[in-house]
Amino acid sequence: MSPHAPTPTTALDSPLSPPTVLVIGAGAVGGFYGAALARAGAHVTTLHRSDYEQVRQYGIRIDGLDRQEIFHPHRVIDRLEALPDPPDFLLVSLKALPDPPVAEIIRPAVGDQTAIILLQNGLDIEEPVQTAFPEHEIIAGLAFVCLQKIAPGHIRHLCHGKITLGRHPSGISPKVRQLAALFTAAGLPCQITDTPARARWIKLVWNAAFNPTSVLAGDRTTEEILRLPEGEKLVRDIMREVIEIAAAHGHDLPEGLIEAHLEATRSIPPYHTSMALDHLAGRAMETDAILGAAVRAARRVGHSAPLLEGLWALMRLLEGDGIEKSG
Amino acid sequence: MSPHAPTPTTALDSPLSPPTVLVIGAGAVGGFYGAALARAGAHVTTLHRSDYEQVRQYGIRIDGLDRQEIFHPHRVIDRLEALPDPPDFLLVSLKALPDPPVAEIIRPAVGDQTAIILLQNGLDIEEPVQTAFPEHEIIAGLAFVCLQKIAPGHIRHLCHGKITLGRHPSGISPKVRQLAALFTAAGLPCQITDTPARARWIKLVWNAAFNPTSVLAGDRTTEEILRLPEGEKLVRDIMREVIEIAAAHGHDLPEGLIEAHLEATRSIPPYHTSMALDHLAGRAMETDAILGAAVRAARRVGHSAPLLEGLWALMRLLEGDGIEKSG
Repeated sequence: MSPHAPTPTTALDSPLSPPTVLVIGAGAVGGFYGAALARAGAHVTTLHRSDYEQVRQYGIRIDGLDRQEIFHPHRVIDRLEALPDPPDFLLVSLKALPDPPVAEIIRPAVGDQTAIILLQNGLDIEEPVQTAFPEHEIIAGLAFVCLQKIAPGHIRHLCHGKITLGRHPSGISPKVRQLAALFTAAGLPCQITDTPARARWIKLVWNAAFNPTSVLAGDRTTEEILRLPEGEKLVRDIMREVIEIAAAHGHDLPEGLIEAHLEATRSIPPYHTSMALDHLAGRAMETDAILGAAVRAARRVGHSAPLLEGLWALMRLLEGDGIEKSG
Repeated sequence: MSPHAPTPTTALDSPLSPPTVLVIGAGAVGGFYGAALARAGAHVTTLHRSDYEQVRQYGIRIDGLDRQEIFHPHRVIDRLEALPDPPDFLLVSLKALPDPPVAEIIRPAVGDQTAIILLQNGLDIEEPVQTAFPEHEIIAGLAFVCLQKIAPGHIRHLCHGKITLGRHPSGISPKVRQLAALFTAAGLPCQITDTPARARWIKLVWNAAFNPTSVLAGDRTTEEILRLPEGEKLVRDIMREVIEIAAAHGHDLPEGLIEAHLEATRSIPPYHTSMALDHLAGRAMETDAILGAAVRAARRVGHSAPLLEGLWALMRLLEGDGIEKSG
């Protein structure tokens, strides 16, 4: 193991006051993007529960595409009350589960000037947070990356890494530009969008197709799914349903999106989706954020979505919530 | 264990010559219906591979709904060449798998006068057998029964038991009447149909809805599937798709079929479908006979069947044929 010492590249509006960032949900995604912000000079605090001791002592090890890195956060905390001051940016990279609401989880850490970045899966996840913090800037974040947490404080970066950022509900703010400059300085491709809701749909097209399929097909990798013609057909059919629902909501997704998603998937090594990894590990899955959101969006506009409805039902049955409890 | 000695009730055209029956595929279904024919006075031979020694020595134990029975076949064989004479009836109750073709399996046992009963799942399964034996009577058999083979030579009968019989492709023959009389004499509800293809669709409506769902949802019972509103909706949606495909093929299935199927399913104890039992035991599943048949039928008439196509793809991925082999 030969970790490279990170070479911070400062990309701040004011070099005298590094922005402070708190990462809530410092698993694979939060650890990876938190490390990037730290490389760019931000003071990044990470919140951990079970990994606290490990990270406090040894930092977060990231096995990157071409190098290893140890990310030592500016501060490591095990509860929000341990944070001395509210951060400039609060990066939420929690798994997108229905309960408890994100607003409740983050409330103790939100200061007057804190911008909240929701780097999570799902649709329309900004609105409840905006309602809870009506005066605060909410930034939608979309990560296009393959990561795997392989041990406490130990992440493997498998491919991609692009992040898309956009102020909710639209428009581009100085804080979004500042964040983008930090990620860019850290060497990550970063895209700014003034239509983050549309970006969420673009990501959902991939997630809805590959995540449930990977689980229901017996925890198959993306490569295994695409190797079987029936698998590729299923993926395309699901993507088409999501694209149609997006259109019914006024989001015309890019021409050739299906081909682009398939191409990007084929270009990576065999990959277990996050939902398959959660399933294999017996953890809660993002079924609601990925399928529930798509199904609800379809129903709201009276759009037929037989495949998504079917996958949703199968995942609900597989998870068994409502079966075991009342059984 | 207090097995009742079976009381044969003769229901033969000629009491002097009991009809001879050979059961190929004497698992749960073949053992159960073979035992019924024996109770009615037929001379029933059963063919076994792994269970041969067990059945030869101890017969087939059937734990029935209200009694136990030991079925001692007239003859127990371990290969078709051991059969001295071709049977009057050849009862095929093999699992419906694509290979090898049924006609090849049964050929050594088919005599000039042998009628072939296909008591199997699937659609259009009579045609290839009729083609192989153009001069022979082919009888379609549909079993509406819950059975489970719990050990070698040991069957549990859980519910129902009705059998539907019809000469392929249509019409009612003396042999069908003779068989029906035997099953009726044995105490089993037996229905004769002159449209067996339609009866196959009626059974497929249930099979396509419950069998793949039970497997993909994590080997759920019928009761668990119906306990979740999403599960019942999925079952109804799949049934509707199959009914529409049947209609596109000229088979108008009975009004209220979905309600009748759901009612019959709710009336039974929590039940693992045959496909879920096969999956749990790591055995080959009837994916092709149940879903493949429905999907092919839809495609032949250009009918859209998104749910069945999706389930088919998921089952193909789960089974992994074409993934592991080329991987």
